[in-house]
Amino acid sequence: MNYYDAIIIGAGPGGISAAISAKQHYPEKSVLIIEKENLYPSSGVNHIINNYPEIREIDFNNLESHDVEIMVGEAIEIRRDEKTIIIKNYENEEEERLVYDKLILSTGSKPIIPLIKGIEKKGVFPITKKLSLLESLKEKLKASENIVIMGGGLIGIEFSAYLVKELGKKVFLVEKEERLAKRSFDPEFGEIMKNKLAELGVKIILNDVIEEFAGEEELRRTILKSGIIIDSELALIAIGYAPEVSLARKAGLELAINNTIRVNEYMMTSDNNIFAVGDCAEKKDFFTRKTRNLMLASIATSEGRTAGASLYELDFTRIHQGSIRTYSGLLADNIIATVGYTEEMALQEGFEIITGFIELPPIPETNINKELTMKLIFTAQTGVLLGAEIIGGMAVTELINVLSTAIQKTMTITELESLQVATNLGVTYPPTIYPIIKAAEKAHLSHRKKGHFIIPSE
Amino acid sequence: MNYYDAIIIGAGPGGISAAISAKQHYPEKSVLIIEKENLYPSSGVNHIINNYPEIREIDFNNLESHDVEIMVGEAIEIRRDEKTIIIKNYENEEEERLVYDKLILSTGSKPIIPLIKGIEKKGVFPITKKLSLLESLKEKLKASENIVIMGGGLIGIEFSAYLVKELGKKVFLVEKEERLAKRSFDPEFGEIMKNKLAELGVKIILNDVIEEFAGEEELRRTILKSGIIIDSELALIAIGYAPEVSLARKAGLELAINNTIRVNEYMMTSDNNIFAVGDCAEKKDFFTRKTRNLMLASIATSEGRTAGASLYELDFTRIHQGSIRTYSGLLADNIIATVGYTEEMALQEGFEIITGFIELPPIPETNINKELTMKLIFTAQTGVLLGAEIIGGMAVTELINVLSTAIQKTMTITELESLQVATNLGVTYPPTIYPIIKAAEKAHLSHRKKGHFIIPSE
Repeated sequence: MNYYDAIIIGAGPGGISAAISAKQHYPEKSVLIIEKENLYPSSGVNHIINNYPEIREIDFNNLESHDVEIMVGEAIEIRRDEKTIIIKNYENEEEERLVYDKLILSTGSKPIIPLIKGIEKKGVFPITKKLSLLESLKEKLKASENIVIMGGGLIGIEFSAYLVKELGKKVFLVEKEERLAKRSFDPEFGEIMKNKLAELGVKIILNDVIEEFAGEEELRRTILKSGIIIDSELALIAIGYAPEVSLARKAGLELAINNTIRVNEYMMTSDNNIFAVGDCAEKKDFFTRKTRNLMLASIATSEGRTAGASLYELDFTRIHQGSIRTYSGLLADNIIATVGYTEEMALQEGFEIITGFIELPPIPETNINKELTMKLIFTAQTGVLLGAEIIGGMAVTELINVLSTAIQKTMTITELESLQVATNLGVTYPPTIYPIIKAAEKAHLSHRKKGHFIIPSE
Repeated sequence: MNYYDAIIIGAGPGGISAAISAKQHYPEKSVLIIEKENLYPSSGVNHIINNYPEIREIDFNNLESHDVEIMVGEAIEIRRDEKTIIIKNYENEEEERLVYDKLILSTGSKPIIPLIKGIEKKGVFPITKKLSLLESLKEKLKASENIVIMGGGLIGIEFSAYLVKELGKKVFLVEKEERLAKRSFDPEFGEIMKNKLAELGVKIILNDVIEEFAGEEELRRTILKSGIIIDSELALIAIGYAPEVSLARKAGLELAINNTIRVNEYMMTSDNNIFAVGDCAEKKDFFTRKTRNLMLASIATSEGRTAGASLYELDFTRIHQGSIRTYSGLLADNIIATVGYTEEMALQEGFEIITGFIELPPIPETNINKELTMKLIFTAQTGVLLGAEIIGGMAVTELINVLSTAIQKTMTITELESLQVATNLGVTYPPTIYPIIKAAEKAHLSHRKKGHFIIPSE
């Protein structure tokens, strides 16, 4: 029976960050991380298709160089009264008992599988991070020409663009709502994405649902409610993910209303010796502190660092102050990104808002040779930044994180209008038309007739 | 005799931003901008060599679409008692009197020309933003093989790399100090830049000064104090810039100790009807509020926006709260960037500091296929971010502005450690090794043994 001061279950971004952070803060403690099959199962089309073994290797080396022990196996049960976990060690196929002092659950999430006739057919795959499933998916991809994607959210969009543009497949994207990316972007951005996908050749079917995956053993046809029949050899399911909390539930840890593991600001669960981070852990909205469904690697790593640092000694300067949705993805050559609230979300939550919307033309022969569309969302009375949506070229990867940082520090319209930024002619936007500043100006001016902002107390 | 509500002298980044901001905030006012020869004379090798007429055109169109009148001419005198300026209109070559209600000076800066024997020789050029001089410089560049650059600061570094790498010239970079970029980067970064330039083939000569530019009419040889003689047809002077304040001085406006035009937080000079922005205006350090030499387009545009908005009505929410050095430049394929204080500057100003230094390896076959070196500088007691230095690939253009935003909002080590950022596998750094977070961790851990941070009051 082995003892570790800290055991982390799951080597996703949250688990890795937690393990390294624990070792950095408590170098004298022994730390073990357990993972079923692969390290760093981050999402995004680039990871799933291209795999990036180099990045997994960097994480692996980082764990090793910080003296974190790594075990390939599966945790089966947590016995909190004995501070013990039962694991199946995949190396020797034996069950083992491990004693912990502190435990961090980073068990992640799993794809939601819809109850559709024929869902079990060969050729129907959830978009998953499981390496074993990914391998067979990649094989099947090679042999397939016509692909149906179920779900026009961010993952469905990224995959559609990739499969058409990079692999030359014929793709049918089926979304039950009236627009794409409804839960992540406002309608005008959904429209831009739809047009860009259509230009690439993706067939987009909105307001429709899949009723049957038909064929003998293998998928042959996808049948929609509207009567449309799509000849297809491969169907990808991308309708969302559910937190993987079976271990925590069995162990009697308190769960939140959305079936995530309840945690406090230090990522501590209802058991003081057990922490939870990443997709399996409860997320509190940055602005309202409500429990919210958010599954992002950026949040997981932030939580992991907080948990690792707080294992043996809570540090008030390092609490997780609420989760912000910060997403940056690929739509062929475009970057699509969003942070915080969309306009729709802000209104739903009860905020009175103003927005600044800009479109900047591409500048040929520079690094900013793509059109840029940006919307900023602010509170109307205090001018505080609530969110942003952007579509454009590589520069978007910069802009989104400036905005994410600004949200984390409650920046206001007027602060963004006089933001001081480093620019580089021909490489970045010039300072006279820096997009964040221009969009903030637009919001300010639209509001000017109505009244002034109150400065937030600081 | 013509009247304008607001006249802006100089169409650099500060003047353009001021003009547009004035029109946005006071659409009923008439606004005129006067420029000697060209719009948007921003610096940087990319502008000066490649020119980017598209970007100047965007600015020009912006001015026009905001109903800003543009005049090509030169302001000769300001008569404050009459609220009049005398200008020479270059279109008709006549002197005119213009009456203003509000005046914004954006007269910029001019290269410092050293008193060296032979400085007047053909083939010796200051690195300037003047279009007319640039044209003859470009002609001369074509005909020159051996080029001396005087001054190993940021502009000298950018030009050296460009001339060797893009144009295949032989370049000798002469710097009087013991290292490159001494006023902008700490020694370890000067060393990296020196090595990168040397790899490209730039001949770097430190601790030496130019004593004579020799030749008949044309430059033939550059003679150094050490006795080194460099056969050279072209010499570029890049030893700094002086504020252009002759108009302001003659008009009796108060000047600051470094010969910039004294301004308050609204960019208002000692005359309530005259504002100054950009290189000619006084800069107050963000951290100490001391008057400081800073000439950057990012600061100029921020000041321009403040001045334009404050012309007729001061708005307390939009003051210029002190200038931050934010620079991003090109060293061949690398981006070199710095914001706020270097370690050396912070110590000179009397701060007790801690630093976080990281080196990340390149990740092949991704967008982050260059090594990255980053140093963050924090106050030791409160953990507030004072500055950053970075060398790396394109990702640096993002990282520097996240850090600049963080400085503007007084972010601390612990806040940066749990920063939530959008990442994109294969395109940006993954969240497990996001450089800002890793460097903040390094700083935190180095300090941990000494004591904890005090949270700044907020």
